[in-house]
Amino acid sequence: MNPVLEAIFKRRSIRKFTAQPLDEATITTLLQAGMAAPTACNSQPWEFIVITEAELLAQVRHKLPFARQNAPCAIVVLGNPGRANNAAARGFWEQDCSAAMENMHIAAVGLGLGSVWIGIHPVEPFVRGVRAVLDIPEDVTPLGMMQVGYPAEEKPPRTQYDENKVHWQSYASRKRQAKRKNARKDQ
Amino acid sequence: MNPVLEAIFKRRSIRKFTAQPLDEATITTLLQAGMAAPTACNSQPWEFIVITEAELLAQVRHKLPFARQNAPCAIVVLGNPGRANNAAARGFWEQDCSAAMENMHIAAVGLGLGSVWIGIHPVEPFVRGVRAVLDIPEDVTPLGMMQVGYPAEEKPPRTQYDENKVHWQSYASRKRQAKRKNARKDQ
Repeated sequence: MNPVLEAIFKRRSIRKFTAQPLDEATITTLLQAGMAAPTACNSQPWEFIVITEAELLAQVRHKLPFARQNAPCAIVVLGNPGRANNAAARGFWEQDCSAAMENMHIAAVGLGLGSVWIGIHPVEPFVRGVRAVLDIPEDVTPLGMMQVGYPAEEKPPRTQYDENKVHWQSYASRKRQAKRKNARKDQ
Repeated sequence: MNPVLEAIFKRRSIRKFTAQPLDEATITTLLQAGMAAPTACNSQPWEFIVITEAELLAQVRHKLPFARQNAPCAIVVLGNPGRANNAAARGFWEQDCSAAMENMHIAAVGLGLGSVWIGIHPVEPFVRGVRAVLDIPEDVTPLGMMQVGYPAEEKPPRTQYDENKVHWQSYASRKRQAKRKNARKDQ
């Protein structure tokens, strides 16, 4: 199979990790992948906190009920809309940072790592908790956290493709869609 | 180079396309990649409109000043928060749909295609315009549009990695970071 597609389908939420730490070069590669994502007006309104210290990892986990698993590394993706090039671009910080986050998860698969995306924003208690532990200023928002390490569980590749979620040409009634499909066939 | 990382770095905004259309199998592969993205509580709060009809492509382009280039296919990613599994998950629709969008762009590279992410939400005139042309109901929001086709321009792979956007352990003062770095070296 195409290795790129394979990586996309192999990206599953991995929540069991070995104790093996990530070396700095590997972490940097993940960050390079994140910062290769597209952003509105090329604003790159992102920052990243890499956590590898056991005590801090435990403190952050304690603030996020869905992050209780123990990974040797966590990368918090932060949105800093103030870095956007203009007012219109500022509204895209969440999309920009999500693209960076997803890039890092796909890259992790390519590197033989496992990872899970822990949502933070817009759940206010999560944002407050992470902000306090990591000294994040008020104008910067923790979007989410990637827990990453060497996987100690395996999950099969998958898509959750559902043809009912696909509309052809427009979000029209099925009748109109059928009409259009027939029109295409007649051409 | 690792083909997965290579694809991530090769994903650039491609705005020139050949006239060659995408076949349905290729479009389906892109959608499968999109629907392999992670979502909060596995809610998959997304839908997709695939546009290949020249007249509709022109109408949509007309509503989006940054989408004037001519691609043989466009895929609009829609957020449908009503599909989320619970109230907390609903707040993540924008992140979920952005991850799906980014997956499709990475997959496009793997398939030898070029693509560009056109932002729609939260720019209200863009949302209104696209909603009108594609008959999108009020409870569904067009997040963005992927224009995709066979590339007629080449751009070199890149990251925009910037070490100034990386914080180690916490978003702390440089002084405190230096202290921590020294502490690590002493261990």
